[in-house]
Amino acid sequence: MDSIRTVGIIAKPDVPHAASLVVSLLDWLDQRGIAYRLDPVAAAYAPGRGAAIPRDELPEGCQMVIVLGGDGTLLAAARAIAGRDIPLFAVNLGGLGFLTTISTNELFPELERALRGEHRIARRRMLACEVRRGEETVSRYIALNDVVITKAHIARMIDLVAYVDAHFVCRYKADGLIVSTPTGSTAYSLSAGGPIIFPSVAALCITPICPHTLTNRPVIVPDASVIQIVNSAADNDAYLTIDGQVGEPLLRDDRIICRASPHSLSLVRPPRMLFFDVLRQKLKWGER
Amino acid sequence: MDSIRTVGIIAKPDVPHAASLVVSLLDWLDQRGIAYRLDPVAAAYAPGRGAAIPRDELPEGCQMVIVLGGDGTLLAAARAIAGRDIPLFAVNLGGLGFLTTISTNELFPELERALRGEHRIARRRMLACEVRRGEETVSRYIALNDVVITKAHIARMIDLVAYVDAHFVCRYKADGLIVSTPTGSTAYSLSAGGPIIFPSVAALCITPICPHTLTNRPVIVPDASVIQIVNSAADNDAYLTIDGQVGEPLLRDDRIICRASPHSLSLVRPPRMLFFDVLRQKLKWGER
Amino acid sequence: MDSIRTVGIIAKPDVPHAASLVVSLLDWLDQRGIAYRLDPVAAAYAPGRGAAIPRDELPEGCQMVIVLGGDGTLLAAARAIAGRDIPLFAVNLGGLGFLTTISTNELFPELERALRGEHRIARRRMLACEVRRGEETVSRYIALNDVVITKAHIARMIDLVAYVDAHFVCRYKADGLIVSTPTGSTAYSLSAGGPIIFPSVAALCITPICPHTLTNRPVIVPDASVIQIVNSAADNDAYLTIDGQVGEPLLRDDRIICRASPHSLSLVRPPRMLFFDVLRQKLKWGER
Amino acid sequence: MDSIRTVGIIAKPDVPHAASLVVSLLDWLDQRGIAYRLDPVAAAYAPGRGAAIPRDELPEGCQMVIVLGGDGTLLAAARAIAGRDIPLFAVNLGGLGFLTTISTNELFPELERALRGEHRIARRRMLACEVRRGEETVSRYIALNDVVITKAHIARMIDLVAYVDAHFVCRYKADGLIVSTPTGSTAYSLSAGGPIIFPSVAALCITPICPHTLTNRPVIVPDASVIQIVNSAADNDAYLTIDGQVGEPLLRDDRIICRASPHSLSLVRPPRMLFFDVLRQKLKWGER
Repeated sequence: MDSIRTVGIIAKPDVPHAASLVVSLLDWLDQRGIAYRLDPVAAAYAPGRGAAIPRDELPEGCQMVIVLGGDGTLLAAARAIAGRDIPLFAVNLGGLGFLTTISTNELFPELERALRGEHRIARRRMLACEVRRGEETVSRYIALNDVVITKAHIARMIDLVAYVDAHFVCRYKADGLIVSTPTGSTAYSLSAGGPIIFPSVAALCITPICPHTLTNRPVIVPDASVIQIVNSAADNDAYLTIDGQVGEPLLRDDRIICRASPHSLSLVRPPRMLFFDVLRQKLKWGER
Repeated sequence: MDSIRTVGIIAKPDVPHAASLVVSLLDWLDQRGIAYRLDPVAAAYAPGRGAAIPRDELPEGCQMVIVLGGDGTLLAAARAIAGRDIPLFAVNLGGLGFLTTISTNELFPELERALRGEHRIARRRMLACEVRRGEETVSRYIALNDVVITKAHIARMIDLVAYVDAHFVCRYKADGLIVSTPTGSTAYSLSAGGPIIFPSVAALCITPICPHTLTNRPVIVPDASVIQIVNSAADNDAYLTIDGQVGEPLLRDDRIICRASPHSLSLVRPPRMLFFDVLRQKLKWGER
Repeated sequence: MDSIRTVGIIAKPDVPHAASLVVSLLDWLDQRGIAYRLDPVAAAYAPGRGAAIPRDELPEGCQMVIVLGGDGTLLAAARAIAGRDIPLFAVNLGGLGFLTTISTNELFPELERALRGEHRIARRRMLACEVRRGEETVSRYIALNDVVITKAHIARMIDLVAYVDAHFVCRYKADGLIVSTPTGSTAYSLSAGGPIIFPSVAALCITPICPHTLTNRPVIVPDASVIQIVNSAADNDAYLTIDGQVGEPLLRDDRIICRASPHSLSLVRPPRMLFFDVLRQKLKWGER
Repeated sequence: MDSIRTVGIIAKPDVPHAASLVVSLLDWLDQRGIAYRLDPVAAAYAPGRGAAIPRDELPEGCQMVIVLGGDGTLLAAARAIAGRDIPLFAVNLGGLGFLTTISTNELFPELERALRGEHRIARRRMLACEVRRGEETVSRYIALNDVVITKAHIARMIDLVAYVDAHFVCRYKADGLIVSTPTGSTAYSLSAGGPIIFPSVAALCITPICPHTLTNRPVIVPDASVIQIVNSAADNDAYLTIDGQVGEPLLRDDRIICRASPHSLSLVRPPRMLFFDVLRQKLKWGER
């Protein structure tokens, strides 16, 4: 990593103790001569300390982006940063997150370590998704967790036809379908019955949501696969959602094409906290 | 059951061979001097044989209602008939249904038997549901299968707080919640991970849909219970659906109150087909 | 309940702080002029305070039996007491149990209340089980939680054919089959994917363990049912277990017949702790 | 693959039509001047046609081994052949298997194709397993499907502590633990709730069997991982099973170490039958 001269700061709104933390952080950076760029939320927490910069433009010129919030804030930051090789330093403001594993207590010591270049980077694979309508690509997205197609309204279930590398998998009659990265395996996919996938496994997971056919179980495919989902539901009866945050309604015969993104996310991780340690705490697996 | 002088006929639209079946049925009834009342779909299948009568009014004066269709048609018929003690004679026009277990081949022999009063009646408990908003009851429904509260839009999950007989059960963070009768246990609840409940068990099942807390498992309560679900999702973020067919958007703090209905549904069943026989066929459990 | 003149005491072995608790309990009873009968473990905890009486004989002449231990101790006590209408007062010596919900802190206040006759009794349905071999009944058991048939050795799975009230349900190819009471629904059946059943639901649950046919889901039947499981595994390849504690190897063609016992268990429960409160704590469902 | 001069033949016992098939196969090979080596079962099916050779020695000098049977026969053959790069040609004598996808109708055409070198080879990763007791390795196994540790007797559950690459994962209280290859993901692991893993995914799956902690879900790790399971059950309370076929009782503190084997299995596959086609048929997913 280049030496850090400018950091971006992205914060979650409406967190009671966030304002004082942002101010302390800015003071700390000022003392070390490090410049910063603030997203609109961070700017609002620290009036007069810097202009509000839209999240999409925030990463420009930064060597690291600090996220203060929860996993949701980090997901949004990851999409904003996607395609640039800038590490995210993710601090959880509430409970431990699967992704935001640095606590506020650890913020300054870990930041100190990162400035010295002694931090550990975890790379997380992202998922590229495009929506094809007839011959045209009508939208493109990049996801850290998952690409989800669900029934949009009252409809009991929708019909989705899945292909992997052009081979027919099956026709799902279900509430929906989740295409998940290993990172996303502990998010929505887990609630829908999917397995936990270690981040470095080179795979994607297709998890059906409440499938009508009870034998339709989660399927793990190599991450070199191209996954294609053909929407057989009527116009606007199915909805596409990226990381649970953005999306659009789908039309009949839309094809959603998912593949591993050439970009991955660089996440600064505290040295003591490993994947299974986070799992044990989040899933209350108990201790030795 | 009173001797059958008039039957209602409710049919599923857009079934290729339904028109000729309806005509044969009317001829058969004419020969036996039995009057009939046709719903709009049945009337359209047999032009000139009778006026189209709205489903809600159809049961009046009937001693039996014949349903030609699938489980969906029967669910709609059951709600139309609810509160009147008129047996439903349910013929499946497509594949075997959980509820529509009489095949078209068996239609006339079974009808013959029913006219002689030799048929078996299965009683299915129904579920009464009301939506309370502040001090007011804003709507009432009756369900044969289930009362379902789900996230309405892009929202990842909604917060629903459940009480049984005024005792706090838990706060669910989930895609939604299903309150199911034993009859509905083989419908949506089964897809969401619920158990199969024999129709005569005096119980209701609360099945969470993709719960965030993995230990939130289906809960079976006595059917004398009053189940109350408080919607903690924002206005219009949650949607109420009855039997997968009708419903309405919910507002924050709406209370959905479910209890066993005083009414039950009377279903004419073929003498040889038992609950477990249907299960084995529908779920492909294999044979002896 | 009759006024309490004599109590039985059953204790779990090898619990560090149990000896002093037993001694305190005996002192407390002595002060109130209440006699006691000690099982071998309780007698060993309090040398010189009373003879060791086998558990089977312990309930004689008692108006209440105090169990000091965990759910396992209570299961054994329930079988020893079965058929006599003597309430069990179950104190957990370790963590909260599903059945042993009285903590050691609450022991004396709750006991005081019980002596005044102000305690609440919860009745739990038990399960009677017999093993038929040819024309003969070779053994009989009574279970509070469950009757379990599992593969005994290396065998990958066993064949078990289930009938409910003489109607064929299906042939299971599985690691085994659990027939559970509502009380047992939170024990082994839950681990095998079964639902949680409120204690007062008049039902039994048949839960397959790792079934080969993925659509073989838990089935809830009325507790008036007679459940018959025919063992199609070779001699000694299947094993019968009662409440996870006692049992025997099975021979091919043995029939295991389960039905609700005419006896139920009377459990003294603390007034504030309700079924869902225990569930929330044990399953870590979180709070309001 | 070398040109085929000698084939091994391994057959499943007690299959009614197998004898005539073996004889036809030997005639067919004789006509083409191809030598054969018969395992004891194949030799018994075709008396006088060749000596019975133990399975372990059978592969010597063969350029291909034909397996006539089901997936179980193939698993045994795979272990016999392990470490030698000889393709298995697996014909199912009964229903379609996940591994034995060549039907008896296809036997001779596919064999013709294989002799011409036009067949497709699918490589399946195998799993090496060793049992460490103190400082000593007491046994070594190789598995195509899975390494399974289960409770051996009546015991309700056992304690198993899992590590991945020396990092503590968790302490499982369960009926057992399955370490599965992608190939094994459609076998026992699927019954225990594991996902379906495409054969070419470079991963192993750790699936708990009926875990007491409901959040203990299947975990997918890279196949470069070393998985270590420490048995905390009492001597002989836990049992190790390889591919559901061979194994041994375990002692307390035994460590079972699993890692991807350097050897993989070469499987001759019919050109039209793809992984998802087999899945759809076996799991009855329905068609387009």
